[in-house]
Amino acid sequence: MPSAAVPIALGPKPTPLLEQAITAGGGEVAELGDARALIWDGGTAGFPERIPENVEWVQLFSAGVEDWFASEVFARNPDVVFTSAAGAFSRSVAEHALMLLLAGVRYLPEHLRARDWRQTEFFPHVGTLRGATVTIAGAGGIGRELITLLHPLGPRIIAVNRSGTPVSAPGVVKTVPAHRISEIWPETDHVVVAAPATPDTRHLIGKSELAQLKPTSWVINIARGSLIDTDALVQALRDGTLGGAGLDVTDPEPLPDGHPLWNLPNAIITPHDSNPPHLRTTAFADHVRENVARFVSGHDLVARVDTAAGY
Amino acid sequence: MPSAAVPIALGPKPTPLLEQAITAGGGEVAELGDARALIWDGGTAGFPERIPENVEWVQLFSAGVEDWFASEVFARNPDVVFTSAAGAFSRSVAEHALMLLLAGVRYLPEHLRARDWRQTEFFPHVGTLRGATVTIAGAGGIGRELITLLHPLGPRIIAVNRSGTPVSAPGVVKTVPAHRISEIWPETDHVVVAAPATPDTRHLIGKSELAQLKPTSWVINIARGSLIDTDALVQALRDGTLGGAGLDVTDPEPLPDGHPLWNLPNAIITPHDSNPPHLRTTAFADHVRENVARFVSGHDLVARVDTAAGY
Repeated sequence: MPSAAVPIALGPKPTPLLEQAITAGGGEVAELGDARALIWDGGTAGFPERIPENVEWVQLFSAGVEDWFASEVFARNPDVVFTSAAGAFSRSVAEHALMLLLAGVRYLPEHLRARDWRQTEFFPHVGTLRGATVTIAGAGGIGRELITLLHPLGPRIIAVNRSGTPVSAPGVVKTVPAHRISEIWPETDHVVVAAPATPDTRHLIGKSELAQLKPTSWVINIARGSLIDTDALVQALRDGTLGGAGLDVTDPEPLPDGHPLWNLPNAIITPHDSNPPHLRTTAFADHVRENVARFVSGHDLVARVDTAAGY
Repeated sequence: MPSAAVPIALGPKPTPLLEQAITAGGGEVAELGDARALIWDGGTAGFPERIPENVEWVQLFSAGVEDWFASEVFARNPDVVFTSAAGAFSRSVAEHALMLLLAGVRYLPEHLRARDWRQTEFFPHVGTLRGATVTIAGAGGIGRELITLLHPLGPRIIAVNRSGTPVSAPGVVKTVPAHRISEIWPETDHVVVAAPATPDTRHLIGKSELAQLKPTSWVINIARGSLIDTDALVQALRDGTLGGAGLDVTDPEPLPDGHPLWNLPNAIITPHDSNPPHLRTTAFADHVRENVARFVSGHDLVARVDTAAGY
């Protein structure tokens, strides 16, 4: 136990939940001029022009820090350690992806439409993740969290990342570099799209990829709509060459009224709500408590921004 | 590696899947008169009147062995080791329970009814298992398997079993004996019913239990319909005092056409198909391969029937 609570500032507007997180981590809320750290629960607008010298560490609210680089906050404060909320927001999205995949594989949409006991009709359609090959296209924060959730269900997991550097986690049978992703479609049962949206990943799942999947395969997208060719997906879902799609993100987004995806029986649409504001708030508070505890005890902080490398 | 494959008989009718499982485990299919073990893929009808002396072990297809006790097969063959398929069939049911719970907590039924992008409307209703208190009423094979699946999602798990003997598994914050189950309703967010149907467990979840749960609570039943008071459940779902129910089993079962549960928007009914025949077949083959491998190498067999204790 530290002999005295560490003074930590909270801005732009203190909330009871974050005050509690600071206290629980071993800090106490203080004015910026007296604080050794700053928890910033907002965007770049209104952020202090220059951080006072007494502040050693700043915790930001966002997972991605592109805006913060653009605003030159890091450049103006070279002696301050910045941490993002990377990781804190991955868990809810990974949980959502697991829900979509399980609901698809176990034939939930058709069950929810039934108004009578169709046991023998449904029996052959109830699948399992046990022994199924699940490809995680994009093994970043969300992808890695999802691997942790999937493993106890017993699938063979194929991880795809940019470099092909092996993802060492239980359940992962191989890691494939993105430029060789075409090799793994024939053995893939289900795919979860969790990669960032870049020019390279646009339509990562298109007509030819969908053609190599199975009539029992589910495609889950919790990343960005542009990673899937929507027209090709609609066609595959209509033709029954694909089992189904669970989409938290769409292209276009929001999905317009009357779009065919709304009426396909094997499409599950959730309107980009895998990480709703109320869960973001509690996840950030957990992250703050964890990082304050580490700061107080002198341990390495989680999600430290590499201001030289640019992420 | 054994020097020669161990002879194992397969009845009543050999299937390629089970022949493969025997071979993969290090055995080879043989006639009953030459075999050291018998894999029995059927019921009590047609089972050999007396097992020849050369047979040391019999693997049965069923998880429960009440019928086998009743038929006196164990009594007639006191020198034979019997194993059941207990455990082999738990995994699919536990996966189904997880699916129902996640679908409920993340508000999937309403999402599936939507035909437009209702993001801000849905945001507050998308919940998480992270930090939620999940009570597993019945910590037998299915319950313990479910605990393994739930743990990475970060809930506080309360296990309830007959004796109260602590269930030592990651994520379990406490174990409560069945006779003290009433103590844990106030702190329970969601409950999964996984206990056997006995006179004691009839209406385990009734009016007063439901009244102590929350308007966001989901009740999942993958055990037997009689453990929940259906009328009280329908009332709680109608009144909105309960979040929802995911039921693979019902009372009455099959649920008759026109029953109110079919039309409640916060009820998910799956017609007792959490462990469909095709998954049972592959799960049994996995179990046979595992037990043959153990038999061949002289290790303890899984799911050995205690013919003296009666289970």
